[in-house]
Amino acid sequence: MRWIRYTVAGSTAYGILEDQTITQVSGDPFDGYETTSTKHALSDVKIELPLVPKTFYAVGFNYPEHVREIAAKQGVEPKLPTQPDVGYRANNSLIAHNETIVIPKVATEKVQYEGELVVVIGKQAKHLSEADALSCVLGYTIGNDMSERTWQASDRTLWRAKNTDTFAPMGPWIETDVELDKLETIVRRNGKEDIRFKTNAMLFGVERYISTISQVCTLYPGDVIWMGTDGSSPNLVDGDIIDIEITGIGTLSNPIKLET
Amino acid sequence: MRWIRYTVAGSTAYGILEDQTITQVSGDPFDGYETTSTKHALSDVKIELPLVPKTFYAVGFNYPEHVREIAAKQGVEPKLPTQPDVGYRANNSLIAHNETIVIPKVATEKVQYEGELVVVIGKQAKHLSEADALSCVLGYTIGNDMSERTWQASDRTLWRAKNTDTFAPMGPWIETDVELDKLETIVRRNGKEDIRFKTNAMLFGVERYISTISQVCTLYPGDVIWMGTDGSSPNLVDGDIIDIEITGIGTLSNPIKLET
Repeated sequence: MRWIRYTVAGSTAYGILEDQTITQVSGDPFDGYETTSTKHALSDVKIELPLVPKTFYAVGFNYPEHVREIAAKQGVEPKLPTQPDVGYRANNSLIAHNETIVIPKVATEKVQYEGELVVVIGKQAKHLSEADALSCVLGYTIGNDMSERTWQASDRTLWRAKNTDTFAPMGPWIETDVELDKLETIVRRNGKEDIRFKTNAMLFGVERYISTISQVCTLYPGDVIWMGTDGSSPNLVDGDIIDIEITGIGTLSNPIKLET
Repeated sequence: MRWIRYTVAGSTAYGILEDQTITQVSGDPFDGYETTSTKHALSDVKIELPLVPKTFYAVGFNYPEHVREIAAKQGVEPKLPTQPDVGYRANNSLIAHNETIVIPKVATEKVQYEGELVVVIGKQAKHLSEADALSCVLGYTIGNDMSERTWQASDRTLWRAKNTDTFAPMGPWIETDVELDKLETIVRRNGKEDIRFKTNAMLFGVERYISTISQVCTLYPGDVIWMGTDGSSPNLVDGDIIDIEITGIGTLSNPIKLET
């Protein structure tokens, strides 16, 4: 099942997307819903963020190749994490499918994409085992963890490297029926493939992260966990269009604009 | 003016606190309000979190003495930050005035308090100068950035060291009339003073942080910025009561309990 959040005629709602048709619901996928008789063509609505996260968790260094490439660019030895520590991002950086990523004037030229699987929590959970971890998951969407690499190397935290306004595109919708091991992530720049990797080839997978977090932090409906990325991106320029596809989920597409 | 958020007879509202009397409002201090004729004695209500933050910013290493003491405990050279980089905390960790801080069984004995000034943003803002920075501030409250020092030293991020459930007491209310240079922070453990410091003796002050953040991140009504702490705490034990007073604002009090 695909959950989409959208605006039509000035009103924002959740709906269930089948093929190219949305069936509007009253309520939402977290607190309960009822389907209505209202239907829309996907092409007639503005797609919104699939949710505004409660807590915005983000995993770093979760694919070996990405760790090695980032280390090589910074001229340091690659260090693979030995345990699943999670970080945070901030909601100011979120934009929806098709909205514009704006690179601020104060940024350097080293602004890059990171295509990521996003886990959407649907049920409150604590002290989950790895075996039970997926029981709290509503579904999955796609994130682009845009990164300014000069700031990432120079700053004590990732605040502006990864949380600048518009640096966290997320969407286009939430897919609830996913087989993690079958997913592939494909990043295309201006229609041409840059990167392709097995989405689930993570150092620490979704189950391990959820179980670990939930030992001391309560997970709530509406929390999201961005699961990190593989490979490395070129520097992006004004006019680029970045498509992040995860097979079985969909494609998140956003144009790049330099602030003028 | 003091904004308090409270529950009485199963209903939660904002009110204006004068002496020991609350005047209930309809609405809230962020989107607008009207005073009502309903009044309550402070002693008759349960004090709630003064707000549920939109984005929960937290500043680290913002007082020189604290940086030196943490470094000494970890056996490393103290490094003072050279620029105001901000981090994030998560809402799962928040509890209100008088609620219980629960130290989980998996924690070590090195669990400590950090008394902090909390800035509450009241107006949307971007690209603020330092001179204009305080124009977006609604007021100030108090935070206790509880920290598990073993995890703080061992983990790549601060996720469990500082975001374990109940590790972020905040309150008791928001004071809008504050002269930053006059504030003193006093931490008492079981009624006895542990620490006293000038609240505004920061490496980078409130104006500098707000201006810096707002260059690339939009600040929104309901965002909070925890401003860091001075000094160092002993290890806390079951039954301790931690009072954090900031003169002119109030006192945040929370008991400590070990998970059984």
